[in-house]
Amino acid sequence: MKDFQFKIICKGKKTKARVGEIYTPHGVIKTPAFVPVGTQASVKSVTPEELATLGTQIFFVNTYHMYLRPGIEVVEKLGGLHKFMGWDGPIITDSGGFQVFSLGRDKKFGNRPLDQITSSSRHDTGNQTIKPDQLVKITDDGVEFRSHWDGSKHLFTPESAMEWQWKLGSDIHIAFDDCTSYPVAYEVAKKSMERTHRWAARSLTASQKLKVESQKSGEPYQALYGSIQGSVFEDLRRESAQYIAAMDFDGVAIGGVAVGETKKEMVHVLDWVVPILPEEKPRHLLGVGEIDDIFAAVERGIDTFDCVQPTRLGRVGIVLIGNTTPAKRDLAPRDNNPINKYKIDITNKCYAEDRRPIEEGCQCYTCTHFARAYIHHLFRVRELLGYRLATIHNLWFVHQLMTEIREAIVEGKLLELKKKWL
Amino acid sequence: MKDFQFKIICKGKKTKARVGEIYTPHGVIKTPAFVPVGTQASVKSVTPEELATLGTQIFFVNTYHMYLRPGIEVVEKLGGLHKFMGWDGPIITDSGGFQVFSLGRDKKFGNRPLDQITSSSRHDTGNQTIKPDQLVKITDDGVEFRSHWDGSKHLFTPESAMEWQWKLGSDIHIAFDDCTSYPVAYEVAKKSMERTHRWAARSLTASQKLKVESQKSGEPYQALYGSIQGSVFEDLRRESAQYIAAMDFDGVAIGGVAVGETKKEMVHVLDWVVPILPEEKPRHLLGVGEIDDIFAAVERGIDTFDCVQPTRLGRVGIVLIGNTTPAKRDLAPRDNNPINKYKIDITNKCYAEDRRPIEEGCQCYTCTHFARAYIHHLFRVRELLGYRLATIHNLWFVHQLMTEIREAIVEGKLLELKKKWL
Repeated sequence: MKDFQFKIICKGKKTKARVGEIYTPHGVIKTPAFVPVGTQASVKSVTPEELATLGTQIFFVNTYHMYLRPGIEVVEKLGGLHKFMGWDGPIITDSGGFQVFSLGRDKKFGNRPLDQITSSSRHDTGNQTIKPDQLVKITDDGVEFRSHWDGSKHLFTPESAMEWQWKLGSDIHIAFDDCTSYPVAYEVAKKSMERTHRWAARSLTASQKLKVESQKSGEPYQALYGSIQGSVFEDLRRESAQYIAAMDFDGVAIGGVAVGETKKEMVHVLDWVVPILPEEKPRHLLGVGEIDDIFAAVERGIDTFDCVQPTRLGRVGIVLIGNTTPAKRDLAPRDNNPINKYKIDITNKCYAEDRRPIEEGCQCYTCTHFARAYIHHLFRVRELLGYRLATIHNLWFVHQLMTEIREAIVEGKLLELKKKWL
Repeated sequence: MKDFQFKIICKGKKTKARVGEIYTPHGVIKTPAFVPVGTQASVKSVTPEELATLGTQIFFVNTYHMYLRPGIEVVEKLGGLHKFMGWDGPIITDSGGFQVFSLGRDKKFGNRPLDQITSSSRHDTGNQTIKPDQLVKITDDGVEFRSHWDGSKHLFTPESAMEWQWKLGSDIHIAFDDCTSYPVAYEVAKKSMERTHRWAARSLTASQKLKVESQKSGEPYQALYGSIQGSVFEDLRRESAQYIAAMDFDGVAIGGVAVGETKKEMVHVLDWVVPILPEEKPRHLLGVGEIDDIFAAVERGIDTFDCVQPTRLGRVGIVLIGNTTPAKRDLAPRDNNPINKYKIDITNKCYAEDRRPIEEGCQCYTCTHFARAYIHHLFRVRELLGYRLATIHNLWFVHQLMTEIREAIVEGKLLELKKKWL
């Protein structure tokens, strides 16, 4: 038996949703699961122990960031990512491709702090500023790019991306892919998808070699997910899904979403892609995680998805609430998403004397210990504890929602739950 | 019996050190004790629960900062500081006087972030910048000043400072005093001291009225410490000690130290002042707390002292180590203090691959969970968790030292312990 397995426990009645378990050498992930992002080997402001308490089963680390600081070799020397971060549960890393492309291509980034860039939901770098122009050069061999820290030149290839993820020792890797920006011309998206497929093959070959070597030395299994691209074009997405589904990957990732397309377009991509995918392999949706997106993804058969939204929003004072909260709500002014009814901006003056917890009835550490007024104060005077308390609440909130969703699927009541929420 | 009492458990053999217990309505403080600073109603980055685990018995909150944000009335409405912060143990507040003076007088502050101003060890405001010029106007009535947040005008008087501390509901208050900068001309220091004495009398009168009112309504006792000034002038310090000692305060605070004078001068002040003070009242030293200062203060009979150093240093990556640590040490380059042997700068490259905890054998959460290499990485990529882990270690370190010191006094071995350390 492999150290990596996916078991479907239960399938949805009127939807394609499924409840499952992903077995990894570092533990089991109950799916559908939300995957927080710890870009630089830390989910900002919280300890691994707190993450576990909040319900986190697995979290994301970005290979690109690890490569630049502290360096892949440093993490390897120190015993791999698990030991380095003090987290004994499953870890997923990406190939580094997305970061390289997103930092280089999206001219909208300008000099804004990465923190404020909502179109990039796949890395959480805090507040350093970057100048993306001419950071990246893509060839068929791989991607040459300049560090966002110091401008130094580096090359990522499918082979090096596989090697680095093996050295990091994460439980789930993602194949090196070419992620297009949005909007993009059909021809550009097609070429990019074809390159993604060539790189998928090279990633798989490189990874299989590394698997054989590591098995000899008795190291834990490290799984590899192929990545599907094709932007918002139906034929490309179907072609990419067929291509990746046919290969010997342990799971499938859907990339190139949450890059600026509409929510409707994202849902179309899922409708085209997921039916083509093999039932028995786990499916990860890259960079998605707002409340409405979660329901859309789960009912279409997605098993895991990562997103920086709950943590990033928390750090600017936007905290999540259920739609059953009998609380005075304000529209979060810094957030253009129509799903405002799940968010309040705790920095809003109306919370300055509010004795209630962020969400009444919530059992998270923040809500069982502190009033909105105190958290409002912490944000107003820029106290570090504020960022942490909001992060704790938001992560707990999303993980609780996932527990509800898993139970609803088992009970055949996912659509009822969705109706209750949306 | 009053709700506030001080009991001396044991006196030092060859020193004036004493082990005691301060009883407050929110619990007992074992002395000598170190008092962390939570300027804005939060010891930066850590929760009250963590503080208790680290050994914190009481912490400092600055009235000036509470007055500006969130406002005294807001804290009062929300049930007082204890409830507002979620901390059920003893709290000490100052009168606001020191902040007003230090923000207004010390021209050296310029536009540097407060975080980097080592001469002001009495408030911990993080990284906002201030322009102190013309912030303050002092008259015999009180101090008119402008907010460092928005420039608005405010007046602090002995009476208002007492009223605000009562509304905050802290266990120990400090009388409104006039703290001179350093160096200062004798005549200026004398006038300032005399003003401090007039204000001490007004503070005491105001506080006693408030005590009577609160006793009628059954509210908990709130103690008041008088504050001794006189800069580095022997006759002024002796005069001030006699004046304050003769008044009906619950305890005595020594102010006007750690404002830029040498460590030798600070020790002189203690040598002049402490012998004059009544044995039976607790003595607090304001703004002091480096390792060598701690021994100097304790052996001269100081019971409690507050300082931002352990927390502030932690946030820039300077972590404390014992002199028995068999570790490679670097001199902390950002720190001019000769007591470098108790500090390492974790941001130094030599720790990038160091598998050891900050201090071998240390039982704090940070040292039992993470290697220096990881903490180094967190600082290098500016991760919030780094500030927190360093703060946790430094607070634990100082509280552990205080436990050792209390035990050494009881065993009559304080000087041996001091020799071991210094």
